[in-house]
Amino acid sequence: MVEKQFVNNLFDVKGKVALITGATGALGKAVAMGYGLAGMKVMITGRGESKCQAVCDELAEAGIECGFSTGDPAVEADVKKVVKDTIDKFGEINVLVTAAGYNHPQPIVEQDLTEWQKIMNSDVQGTWLFCKYVGERMIEQAKGGKVILVSSARSKMGMSGYTGYCTAKGGIDLMAQSLACEWTAKYKINVNTINPTVFRSDLTEWMFDPASEVYKNFLKRLPIGRLGEPEDFVGPCIFLASSASDFMTGANVAVEGGYWAN
Amino acid sequence: MVEKQFVNNLFDVKGKVALITGATGALGKAVAMGYGLAGMKVMITGRGESKCQAVCDELAEAGIECGFSTGDPAVEADVKKVVKDTIDKFGEINVLVTAAGYNHPQPIVEQDLTEWQKIMNSDVQGTWLFCKYVGERMIEQAKGGKVILVSSARSKMGMSGYTGYCTAKGGIDLMAQSLACEWTAKYKINVNTINPTVFRSDLTEWMFDPASEVYKNFLKRLPIGRLGEPEDFVGPCIFLASSASDFMTGANVAVEGGYWAN
Amino acid sequence: MVEKQFVNNLFDVKGKVALITGATGALGKAVAMGYGLAGMKVMITGRGESKCQAVCDELAEAGIECGFSTGDPAVEADVKKVVKDTIDKFGEINVLVTAAGYNHPQPIVEQDLTEWQKIMNSDVQGTWLFCKYVGERMIEQAKGGKVILVSSARSKMGMSGYTGYCTAKGGIDLMAQSLACEWTAKYKINVNTINPTVFRSDLTEWMFDPASEVYKNFLKRLPIGRLGEPEDFVGPCIFLASSASDFMTGANVAVEGGYWAN
Amino acid sequence: MVEKQFVNNLFDVKGKVALITGATGALGKAVAMGYGLAGMKVMITGRGESKCQAVCDELAEAGIECGFSTGDPAVEADVKKVVKDTIDKFGEINVLVTAAGYNHPQPIVEQDLTEWQKIMNSDVQGTWLFCKYVGERMIEQAKGGKVILVSSARSKMGMSGYTGYCTAKGGIDLMAQSLACEWTAKYKINVNTINPTVFRSDLTEWMFDPASEVYKNFLKRLPIGRLGEPEDFVGPCIFLASSASDFMTGANVAVEGGYWAN
Repeated sequence: MVEKQFVNNLFDVKGKVALITGATGALGKAVAMGYGLAGMKVMITGRGESKCQAVCDELAEAGIECGFSTGDPAVEADVKKVVKDTIDKFGEINVLVTAAGYNHPQPIVEQDLTEWQKIMNSDVQGTWLFCKYVGERMIEQAKGGKVILVSSARSKMGMSGYTGYCTAKGGIDLMAQSLACEWTAKYKINVNTINPTVFRSDLTEWMFDPASEVYKNFLKRLPIGRLGEPEDFVGPCIFLASSASDFMTGANVAVEGGYWAN
Repeated sequence: MVEKQFVNNLFDVKGKVALITGATGALGKAVAMGYGLAGMKVMITGRGESKCQAVCDELAEAGIECGFSTGDPAVEADVKKVVKDTIDKFGEINVLVTAAGYNHPQPIVEQDLTEWQKIMNSDVQGTWLFCKYVGERMIEQAKGGKVILVSSARSKMGMSGYTGYCTAKGGIDLMAQSLACEWTAKYKINVNTINPTVFRSDLTEWMFDPASEVYKNFLKRLPIGRLGEPEDFVGPCIFLASSASDFMTGANVAVEGGYWAN
Repeated sequence: MVEKQFVNNLFDVKGKVALITGATGALGKAVAMGYGLAGMKVMITGRGESKCQAVCDELAEAGIECGFSTGDPAVEADVKKVVKDTIDKFGEINVLVTAAGYNHPQPIVEQDLTEWQKIMNSDVQGTWLFCKYVGERMIEQAKGGKVILVSSARSKMGMSGYTGYCTAKGGIDLMAQSLACEWTAKYKINVNTINPTVFRSDLTEWMFDPASEVYKNFLKRLPIGRLGEPEDFVGPCIFLASSASDFMTGANVAVEGGYWAN
Repeated sequence: MVEKQFVNNLFDVKGKVALITGATGALGKAVAMGYGLAGMKVMITGRGESKCQAVCDELAEAGIECGFSTGDPAVEADVKKVVKDTIDKFGEINVLVTAAGYNHPQPIVEQDLTEWQKIMNSDVQGTWLFCKYVGERMIEQAKGGKVILVSSARSKMGMSGYTGYCTAKGGIDLMAQSLACEWTAKYKINVNTINPTVFRSDLTEWMFDPASEVYKNFLKRLPIGRLGEPEDFVGPCIFLASSASDFMTGANVAVEGGYWAN
């Protein structure tokens, strides 16, 4: 039976503890702020201490219970430390969002193996490590959990110069699907991806110039008629962290303005 | 900037008018109840007057502002009437959910053309007609809108005996994708599908017997470890009706316990 | 063991009987000619007698054993007649290629139901009817068979004005998948789709003007750097009719220059 | 125009030089034998010298022009050496098939990072390195080429214990799609994947016991009603190496008995 209390609580995430990687980037920061304003306790991580501190300060100023722990997602010891710091601070982890990532487009014949590895390690290995060590905790906690891997619309669409990035993101979708098979029935941990197209950030700001060819070409393929703003990311992330999505796992949730639709 | 008010309002659908087809079925009724309890005005439609009346009474008893208009979704005149009745009663339509559908599994060589047509007409033509006539209104209203087509996990997975149903649902996914291309940039009407697996209803109750082979086989492929309950459908439907999903269009949103993931 | 004789015979389709619908169109005709030159007996069908006769004459001139039977694929009695004529002429049917189709792009709010039905009937119902009646024969023959449904790259990509065509083609992919589940293990009938992008024909010739905007925009999304020529269609059709593809069924084979890849 | 000579030559691969990785495995060896018997010159590679020698001897005995060069696909220096040896021996490379791979299913919380890296390096990095160094040659040769990456049906289907393998294979599909975008229009190098389900090999032999639960469960989901035999792999590989598939690039070609179809 669908009852009033049930409907009222569907999107209520108050008090949950979230660990957010890549939280100094535009998407990660938006999620951190959104989660915090929705009442969650937020632990953020990134590689730079001053950037982490700045985001944390901003969150705190908005009245959000917040902490940070620096580290490189591709480095196992760092990931273990970040997870431990989160537990030490908040006692548990209920939601994981992996928003860290890296790209460097180059033709394959010009890309050095080390550069390709940097993309793969930042994007895939970093995600895998956080899943492993946060998953371990969630299993111990025995209260279920929500894991949201930030993939990309590029996870299903190739692109010239992207044998690193597309390969990495294609892999992340399957990592989520595999973890859903491994965890959801057994531990009530749901694992989904969000697959964004280009969202505004310091790195992508140049694409938002309506006079540019890049923008015009992009818009021709985007049914929604505009690129993404960090705010657009918040709703889907709260949804996937809430009980409203309890029956969803292993899904690749397109938050891409219809890029996949045409 | 992500601000408190923005986050608070993300899932707020109060006052919106929803038209729900197939509202006497388990999923349609759950959505109607969920929408109503979330503060929406709900117009329901189905073929049988007494059934519609009963659902409407139940909604009204829960304090929901509600109306109904009977009709066959596959019949153009009926659809026009239902849309007109909705406008007459509530003045506008902001959200459309097409939850009506029909199936009759048979080997193709045993299925009469008329029976196959009945599946296609109920599922595809009915959906198309509601999109056409509700879309017309939404365009006139010039306030955007949210269209949610209930497709199926079967829209991407074939099945023996399902040359009607799978074909229909595969078509519905593409109808949504095409309408996203046609409408979203121009009219701010978002069109998405929800793709459920088997949910409990009078028709599917027999599949929920844990001792049955059907159930056991199904569960082997469902990462979430259980079949769907009508309640599971409500959260995704509110999400897709709310501003939280404003950047999503043309998406096929899996609400299938991970059926597509493995 | 992979042996010489096995490899030599992989693509050998000599003596097989193929029924090809839409054989007066560019793709259907190319397949008819390709199949015939590969040694198959070819029965063609289309709606116009003089066009069918002309294709048949051309095939005969190339030394191909060929016949035709006119009919509308959307009309059950016509389909039964065409299938009977094929059996009468060649004694059996080993391969079915459904290349008939119709499109009329229009915004949904401007498209009459009858016009939308014409698209759906030509594309989906016509395909279903041929599968039903040819399938019946193939099951009786008890020698297996190969069924190739010509779908479209549009079966997975929506488009403005295409709530008929994309819906139809999306449905056809699923019809093939369902028939694979229904037939392949039981009757050794393999059912696959070929999903082409724009190929040169009388109807599409205008798109091939390198100076046009349509062409230029199209090419930006086609990794292969050109549109399709009817010849491009022949190899995949022979492959799917031959024993080389015996382990493939229910597949949507992209013959679209990489349109789905990016 | 479709002419006799054109049709006769569609699947003719005589004289082409193929480099095949993982050629000591069941699939790689079948391809090597099939290619050789179809008249191609075959260079094989694998990690073990004696195994490579044995396959090469078998090919030579069947009258195939053949050579081998040992190496670990995940090691850059080895890949460069293998590519150089191929050029030294045959003067050019026209076709690349990457059939090397590795898997070790484990729950993520039990899998060491080094073991996960071994899977990723063998499967993804090895494929990337061969694409890079063979691609370099093909671009220099300026005669186009055909690249076939052996992915897996698991590239789109998650599985418990497969956060390495599924992730890797999901990545490979996207690598092919990206290379199609990067290479096909510019250099006439087509890049496609073949996505097999379980095929018979020393490693999988145990799954072919019709009395086992694994086999029975597998068969329930395989529309074709049997698992794969190495022979089933040869036809698709010749097809993708031949001009018959010239309009296909960036495609994920399902050779999986319909596993994706249902």
